[in-house]
Amino acid sequence: MTLSERNIIEHIRKIAGRPSVQGLIRGIGDDCSVFGGPGPWLVSTDMLVDGVHFNRDWHPPRLLGRKSLAVNLSDIAAMGGIPRYILLSVSLPPGLSSEWLFQWLGGVAEILSEYDCALIGGDTVTGSELNISVTVLGEQHPAGSLYRSGAGAGDTVYVSGVLGSSAAGLAILKHMEHNAEQGLKDTWQTLVDAHLDPVPQIQTGQILCASGWVTSMQDISDGLATDLSHICKESAVSALILAEKLPNHPVLDDVCEALNIRKLDCILRGGEDYQLVFTVRKGGEKTVEDLLQGQGKTAYPIGTIEKGRGLFLEKSPGIRQEITFQGYEHLA
Amino acid sequence: MTLSERNIIEHIRKIAGRPSVQGLIRGIGDDCSVFGGPGPWLVSTDMLVDGVHFNRDWHPPRLLGRKSLAVNLSDIAAMGGIPRYILLSVSLPPGLSSEWLFQWLGGVAEILSEYDCALIGGDTVTGSELNISVTVLGEQHPAGSLYRSGAGAGDTVYVSGVLGSSAAGLAILKHMEHNAEQGLKDTWQTLVDAHLDPVPQIQTGQILCASGWVTSMQDISDGLATDLSHICKESAVSALILAEKLPNHPVLDDVCEALNIRKLDCILRGGEDYQLVFTVRKGGEKTVEDLLQGQGKTAYPIGTIEKGRGLFLEKSPGIRQEITFQGYEHLA
Repeated sequence: MTLSERNIIEHIRKIAGRPSVQGLIRGIGDDCSVFGGPGPWLVSTDMLVDGVHFNRDWHPPRLLGRKSLAVNLSDIAAMGGIPRYILLSVSLPPGLSSEWLFQWLGGVAEILSEYDCALIGGDTVTGSELNISVTVLGEQHPAGSLYRSGAGAGDTVYVSGVLGSSAAGLAILKHMEHNAEQGLKDTWQTLVDAHLDPVPQIQTGQILCASGWVTSMQDISDGLATDLSHICKESAVSALILAEKLPNHPVLDDVCEALNIRKLDCILRGGEDYQLVFTVRKGGEKTVEDLLQGQGKTAYPIGTIEKGRGLFLEKSPGIRQEITFQGYEHLA
Repeated sequence: MTLSERNIIEHIRKIAGRPSVQGLIRGIGDDCSVFGGPGPWLVSTDMLVDGVHFNRDWHPPRLLGRKSLAVNLSDIAAMGGIPRYILLSVSLPPGLSSEWLFQWLGGVAEILSEYDCALIGGDTVTGSELNISVTVLGEQHPAGSLYRSGAGAGDTVYVSGVLGSSAAGLAILKHMEHNAEQGLKDTWQTLVDAHLDPVPQIQTGQILCASGWVTSMQDISDGLATDLSHICKESAVSALILAEKLPNHPVLDDVCEALNIRKLDCILRGGEDYQLVFTVRKGGEKTVEDLLQGQGKTAYPIGTIEKGRGLFLEKSPGIRQEITFQGYEHLA
């Protein structure tokens, strides 16, 4: 099968059709798509480049299709919103097989279905490298949006799940590339999955938004250190996080020892966990924890918001270390 | 100056700030931007790759910045809508100078200002080639949206301006690359400008939408033959266009003769003129022409919609030739 633009567009039209999505007035097929509804609307966009943000050598196309959308849905989760529409552009290098492409689109279709989103636009072009650009539109939660600004002294800092799994998963994949004969340890698969197929915390974001107790929130894409620093900067506060409180998957220790990587680096700077980091106003801790638990979700308190500026880590009682902006950035 | 992501984002934040744009609740700086307003909303996206959709050898960065947005605004024009918000992602190759980038962003800022749009999101990444992905959001015109479907037998087909200029301009640029010593003829500059700095027909689109007489519309990005074929297909009609009625810039003949290119090819298949092609219901021709003329705009009747399927060209009285889908596609 040839990778003609028309082939691809026909295929995309098939997976795009989700008449159940309310408010969609005109989908793919005209100069613009048209959507209505009360709003307000949330919008975010990400660009993913082969070899920079993902690696086709170890990223199965279906999972990459899922992740291409998931990382954008995570931005909607970070505001507490409801994802609705996706626009998906892709630049295809000449050597890319149609099998790869259709598996990738299969992963895209899965996420559309799982989160009840409609694909309402996009572009397919040729280029020398695979480049995936996704725009997501969501509706604001009736309770409003949660911003990075809003944290206040005395708030408790929480994360919605374990950290460092994705970074460790990536380290495992890189290790396996040169040591394939060792085989992947069964127990390590969870961390590999965390990297290849992250789960956007849509439901958790909405629960937190509705609770009325959350003062700021963002998703952890670049690592806790970087992302919590954004909250501190935008809220004009500082944060103190306690190393002993930082949650990680039980197998992380084993992986870090085996691969000789620093566990705290994975947790603080690893990035791509796509959990939420958020702050809860004093007095609301139990309410928020109970609300999440009632829906089978967990939240881990990891520290507190304080006056001042900067992000600090307490490794042992009384010993603080500033870790502001020590997460990694994709672009140096 | 180094091209750090933070440099670029700081610069983008500066050009993005347009508090005059109504309905913008939260701009760049959080996980999502947030916008309100009654809607419905129009959305479209395009991906542009260096060497495929543009050529940095002859495309000055400022004009490329303008065109990067203009081709997207043209999709809003094609629906009769009002452009509001832009999201702009770019993959930057290692060798790109900061001077180039900031000139390009200067062009972006010009278009934002000229069309009163706000830049509300984006992403900057590294890649091996320059890739520009733009998403535009607009408000639907109070009179509704004009789709490709809607043309009926008896309608007159119009275009909003001269055709073939962009294709001829591109031919001139390619010619000049190998014959720089000849110098560019002054009279040819208009065609070069048409290619490098196309003008989205926003006002014309809105006038046509408000007129109540226009039954279908789209912008001419891939060439009249391809784009009018889309209208025919979506409207389940055929169209007959008259070669003698097709408008072109007076200097086009001179260029085509000098460069040995076929004038009719430029006009029918050239693409990238970003004029509008639209159909007017029988009886509304004069009203529409007068409305446009009253705003200093022109429309050229080029043929009629008929029953049946396909797109036909009448080169001389009674001699019809089918030209359906003979425009070019960017991706074979």
